[in-house]
Amino acid sequence: MERIHETALDVLENIGVANAVPRLQEVALKKGCRISDSGRLVFPRTLVEDCIAGTPKTAFYLSRDGSRDLEMSGRRVHFDPGGEAISTLDVGANIYRPSTLIDLYDFARLTDKMEHLDSFGKVVVPTEITDHRAHDINTAYASLAGTNKHVELNFTHTGHINDALDMLYLIAGSEKAYRDHPFCSTGGCPVVSPLTYGEDNSEVCIDAPRLGSPASVIIAPQAGATSPAALAGTLVQAMAETLAGLLLVQLTTPGHPVLFGVWPFVSDLRTGAFSGGGGEQALLAAAAAQISNFYNLPCSVGAGMTDSKAVDNQAGYERGITTVLAALAGSNVISEVGGMMGSLLGCSFESMVIDNEMLGMVQRILRGIEVTDETLSYHVIEDVVYGAGHYLGHPQTLELMGSEFLYPTLADRKSPEEWEENGSHDIRDKARERTRSILSSHYPTHIDPAVDKVLRERFPLQLPVEAMTATSGRW
Amino acid sequence: MERIHETALDVLENIGVANAVPRLQEVALKKGCRISDSGRLVFPRTLVEDCIAGTPKTAFYLSRDGSRDLEMSGRRVHFDPGGEAISTLDVGANIYRPSTLIDLYDFARLTDKMEHLDSFGKVVVPTEITDHRAHDINTAYASLAGTNKHVELNFTHTGHINDALDMLYLIAGSEKAYRDHPFCSTGGCPVVSPLTYGEDNSEVCIDAPRLGSPASVIIAPQAGATSPAALAGTLVQAMAETLAGLLLVQLTTPGHPVLFGVWPFVSDLRTGAFSGGGGEQALLAAAAAQISNFYNLPCSVGAGMTDSKAVDNQAGYERGITTVLAALAGSNVISEVGGMMGSLLGCSFESMVIDNEMLGMVQRILRGIEVTDETLSYHVIEDVVYGAGHYLGHPQTLELMGSEFLYPTLADRKSPEEWEENGSHDIRDKARERTRSILSSHYPTHIDPAVDKVLRERFPLQLPVEAMTATSGRW
Repeated sequence: MERIHETALDVLENIGVANAVPRLQEVALKKGCRISDSGRLVFPRTLVEDCIAGTPKTAFYLSRDGSRDLEMSGRRVHFDPGGEAISTLDVGANIYRPSTLIDLYDFARLTDKMEHLDSFGKVVVPTEITDHRAHDINTAYASLAGTNKHVELNFTHTGHINDALDMLYLIAGSEKAYRDHPFCSTGGCPVVSPLTYGEDNSEVCIDAPRLGSPASVIIAPQAGATSPAALAGTLVQAMAETLAGLLLVQLTTPGHPVLFGVWPFVSDLRTGAFSGGGGEQALLAAAAAQISNFYNLPCSVGAGMTDSKAVDNQAGYERGITTVLAALAGSNVISEVGGMMGSLLGCSFESMVIDNEMLGMVQRILRGIEVTDETLSYHVIEDVVYGAGHYLGHPQTLELMGSEFLYPTLADRKSPEEWEENGSHDIRDKARERTRSILSSHYPTHIDPAVDKVLRERFPLQLPVEAMTATSGRW
Repeated sequence: MERIHETALDVLENIGVANAVPRLQEVALKKGCRISDSGRLVFPRTLVEDCIAGTPKTAFYLSRDGSRDLEMSGRRVHFDPGGEAISTLDVGANIYRPSTLIDLYDFARLTDKMEHLDSFGKVVVPTEITDHRAHDINTAYASLAGTNKHVELNFTHTGHINDALDMLYLIAGSEKAYRDHPFCSTGGCPVVSPLTYGEDNSEVCIDAPRLGSPASVIIAPQAGATSPAALAGTLVQAMAETLAGLLLVQLTTPGHPVLFGVWPFVSDLRTGAFSGGGGEQALLAAAAAQISNFYNLPCSVGAGMTDSKAVDNQAGYERGITTVLAALAGSNVISEVGGMMGSLLGCSFESMVIDNEMLGMVQRILRGIEVTDETLSYHVIEDVVYGAGHYLGHPQTLELMGSEFLYPTLADRKSPEEWEENGSHDIRDKARERTRSILSSHYPTHIDPAVDKVLRERFPLQLPVEAMTATSGRW
């Protein structure tokens, strides 16, 4: 970790980052940065270290009603479905179709009922909305209508943040109510790998603190394509780039919390295509979380992805392995693990429901094994050996059966005979039923109807009112 | 770990183990053990500690031709399909039927071609053979005919070991040839939880060293049923019981290598049924490996199981998560991870093929990330930033593309469009094809035909000769 850190600082100090936006350059040059002969902004290592030190070690993603506030610090782990898939796998289908605004709303509603998903963002792109401004505000609305968990907003242009703030103040009741308890965040990918700032995303990241939540800075170089094929080298570059993102926020809004998103990805070098489900990806995400924890920064990684298009065994083991590694490494937010399919190109409702079940298992693992005089159970063993001969009826068993074990509600534990008698269903079949049951009934009113009317007057909202009731017949 | 160890020694010293067979009692009493008032054999802690210290820290599972010898030491990880399922899931089917000797032979042939499975045992039970002696020798023969990887043999009675040794000497060419390079091992589960020696299995474990390989001692209490519901208590009891198994071997054949198999399992306390795929199971197996490594003993755990009957997403994530945890904990042998389904009640060919693919991913993870001046890639980053702007054609990429990345051969990485054009197959479909391709063509002659003739004269072998050729039409 030390060597990756030191080399990342070498990169920032000597190679630097191209295309720094004027708002960054202005403050950076005053703080001792300079423009190199090749026009790149280079950062003295002491400045980088000061900015790391000046970033809060704890950050919060708040939920609308306070029932699901997330503290991101230390090795606390939360799960987020991630996003921006451009296609949806319909329930029961084997074809990906372009995703829509209604899909986004439906995924938000489903996330709302998933006990192990902690926050929500633009999991699918409403591909039918091509106007950027309409896209951003509709995305925000569909998300906020569907769930009151913390929502990460996306902005194609920083100018659209004002629209969103207007909407958030209305939903919260007032600007003050929102400011007292901000339940949305934003950020983006301000660096195009290798080591070049992107203009629009830089501006959004600089303005992200306006939402009152941590600014989420995410950097996703692809090993072998936009970063070195050597995994250690990809970590070096990813760290340098994420630090460049952190600097963007810290130099312009010193002391504002940042969610440090080191998201190195992998290219399958046979085709150059992005791959999210392999062992190398598992290692990179876990290592990224480790290094972020070495900085003690609130962090996110992309993990729990699959390259499979089918809701199948491959999807299961790729997701399971990559998720549990990132979780054990202590990533505060693990994103892209709630329905995302096919190397992030599509999203599946059934997968979201299955992933939720799997995430419960991962959270159980994170709880670990409690070792106390009582749990060591010497006297319980003695009782049983000299007594009943089995533990099924022992008071300890009765006492712990509800707390020591997590009972899956979707995963099948029947005997083969019972399973066959019940129709030999696989978990996708069961997830399909649960998805339909939730989505045909859970039409939450997270936005007050009176406020909703105002929003519809003020913004070009395209989510049909009739799509937001059980009578829509969609499910 | 210290506390679990100390409490396990308390259990052995004070509560002890019931039903010690005379061959054990005889030596144990001379070494300072005694029979307690309740008739149980109790072990002084210094004796237990001496026996742990006297057990070799390195053990080998050898393969027939020396091409796949396994060194079990430190944190080296190997994978074994495990066993003894009583039913088989036919390729493409959704019904479990009683498993047969031909199934066992077919699973052995399939294992023979699985590059990430390291050894083989009685993965399914030939349920049609009810005579114990015929069962044991036929099981040995079907396994040895199907694969030349290391084979773990099972004996229902220690008297059957002589049959097997006769067979092994014939296959090896001579007793000396086998003794110089023993390629089979045995052992068993000598303790019935809680804390009671089983007679037949005790005898087999005492005689296991006769095969010239490490004696495999496996103890599988079920948390909540045959061991405490508290996971820490289950570890205490499982350690005490596995040490009781180790003592069985060490007191009767001092210094013989033992494969220390702490295999705590879980009961689903809603039904009392065994469950192998949950988070608690993942924790128990990883903890068991950690404690075995704390003793520095060659060890095995049961992990990579699933409760699913379908070759589905549940099977994938349950297996993936439990396997990678046991692997990261450094278990020398991870068993039950090559086709076993439905809480170990069935076995699936397609699953074995899929698991093999997954195990490659796990091995890639175990290799980790190499950090050197070269892999840190500072100068590569410099090259690309000031040059091509991407890494696809960089010499480092070309050099590392074959070594840094493992390319799956079964897992799908196609785009959704390409996947749909190719028929929207899931990984089970692809595994079915590969299974059929291997099993219709791979009829190895691991046993010399002249020797085979002798074996068929000498032993009541039931595997039909015609089942052992491609013309059998079975596949």
